[in-house]
Amino acid sequence: MTWTKIVECVPNFSEGRDLDKVEKIVSAFRGKEGVKLLDYSSDQDHNRTVVTVVGEPEALKKAVVEAAKLAIELIDLNKHEGQHPRMGAVDVIPFIPIKNVDMDEAIEMSKAVGKILGEELKFPVFLYEKSASAPHRENLAKVRKGQFEGMAEKIKEPEWHPDFGPAERHPTAGTVAVGARMPLVAFNVNLNTSDLEIATQIGKNIRHINGGLRFVKAMGVELHERHITQVSMNLTDYTRTAIYRVFELIRIEARRYGVSIVGSEVIGLIPMAALIDTAEYYLGIENFSMDQVLESRIME
Amino acid sequence: MTWTKIVECVPNFSEGRDLDKVEKIVSAFRGKEGVKLLDYSSDQDHNRTVVTVVGEPEALKKAVVEAAKLAIELIDLNKHEGQHPRMGAVDVIPFIPIKNVDMDEAIEMSKAVGKILGEELKFPVFLYEKSASAPHRENLAKVRKGQFEGMAEKIKEPEWHPDFGPAERHPTAGTVAVGARMPLVAFNVNLNTSDLEIATQIGKNIRHINGGLRFVKAMGVELHERHITQVSMNLTDYTRTAIYRVFELIRIEARRYGVSIVGSEVIGLIPMAALIDTAEYYLGIENFSMDQVLESRIME
Repeated sequence: MTWTKIVECVPNFSEGRDLDKVEKIVSAFRGKEGVKLLDYSSDQDHNRTVVTVVGEPEALKKAVVEAAKLAIELIDLNKHEGQHPRMGAVDVIPFIPIKNVDMDEAIEMSKAVGKILGEELKFPVFLYEKSASAPHRENLAKVRKGQFEGMAEKIKEPEWHPDFGPAERHPTAGTVAVGARMPLVAFNVNLNTSDLEIATQIGKNIRHINGGLRFVKAMGVELHERHITQVSMNLTDYTRTAIYRVFELIRIEARRYGVSIVGSEVIGLIPMAALIDTAEYYLGIENFSMDQVLESRIME
Repeated sequence: MTWTKIVECVPNFSEGRDLDKVEKIVSAFRGKEGVKLLDYSSDQDHNRTVVTVVGEPEALKKAVVEAAKLAIELIDLNKHEGQHPRMGAVDVIPFIPIKNVDMDEAIEMSKAVGKILGEELKFPVFLYEKSASAPHRENLAKVRKGQFEGMAEKIKEPEWHPDFGPAERHPTAGTVAVGARMPLVAFNVNLNTSDLEIATQIGKNIRHINGGLRFVKAMGVELHERHITQVSMNLTDYTRTAIYRVFELIRIEARRYGVSIVGSEVIGLIPMAALIDTAEYYLGIENFSMDQVLESRIME
């Protein structure tokens, strides 16, 4: 591989039951130079498929547009039911900078894809997260509120005029949110207490919304079988709120209750840099460069 | 890239002054599918060039043989002088398993390359390290003892019969050691004392030769400008003697002198897994798999 730049994309499609359709859509990510399909999983209850794909910017944009086009053709939201909120055949398309790509470039990618979907495919696009054109459009849940059904009217309101495409819901495919964000790290810390109240309180103390660390979302969770509890987190920017800082802060908070950390878990994928930064901290490594990591040199 | 397997090779060539010759030899590693040249550096005093290259097993073997052939043609050891001990035009060829390759496969590679060099190029080969055919051949310094000049007679002794090729020194290119070993990690830990005796004693306590950890070589070093000392180490198998274990053991030993660790450094390249293992330890991550590292998935 000589991918100098790597971007990740995690498009969500509103089909999780008709696996023939899912395969057709996912095929847009197969066998393409500069694109690698890492994972896709369909949920019957949600009636939704989440795809994880990485690639070089140009190749990835093309493949994402191709997949979106297939989804628009194949999926009719008028007939869609499932537990997960949704507003479009392809429901959300986040671009995530991974290597030699900054947030500005990921934002550019989201806008370029949004422009094609809106202008060429007449599929209304809302830019969200870091790509949002206004603060009230940053949060996906707010953009999607009302879902496919409500979007028929919502999209006509001036504050919900789409960023690209007609101000009219696509009759079968609805609308889509396209944007750029940092990689999410799902990180959970286990506590040697069965008292959910303690895990919940620690979660509140360390999370952003209650005055804690800027890029932490957290809640307390019971692990019934193990008779312990967990601070379950999403770290929304590990480059600015480091994992070790979150971990050590939880340790410090737990002390107040005479509780200790018994372990942690990483759910799903995590960027190499997030863990290497952790090793650098604990070993106190001076002047370390990611170029010293053998695998990082191989990928250049 | 779709390299499912990755092996590293660090061949040393006995030419560090005539850079035209060096470029000719190094060209064997350029522009080849399945081979990536990571680094090469020539030392005038040593009159030696160290190459770092990674690749898929088959492609890498071919390129290494091609480079060795060029070195045999271009370098005349009868005219070679330099500070570094040497016995051949290409002096040593270690194969190092990196990803989806075990030590047995790296040993196989070293034997396959040794066989070609010996039988096709009539260049005598000693298998060394993990590939050695007898315990007295494991250590490179012992194999190379006597150097090019002494090898004319040494190779005729029964215990130094080469593993491949004629039992006769090549008239201009000498002999070579080919083998397999684990990646070396050069890891140094800095102490807040200027007393070299303390760093030396800690080094002795933790290193294998004096009763310490199995895969640690260590010595005390003074960092004059910073008025501190350092335990300078080579970790010869980080998969079995973990970096964090070495680090914590130094911390424990230092306590005896009222000394603290002030930092550490990694010299040169380090495999991703060595640092991720460290992060796993300090965060107490349960059930972690290297497949969860985004970059590791991209390289598959």
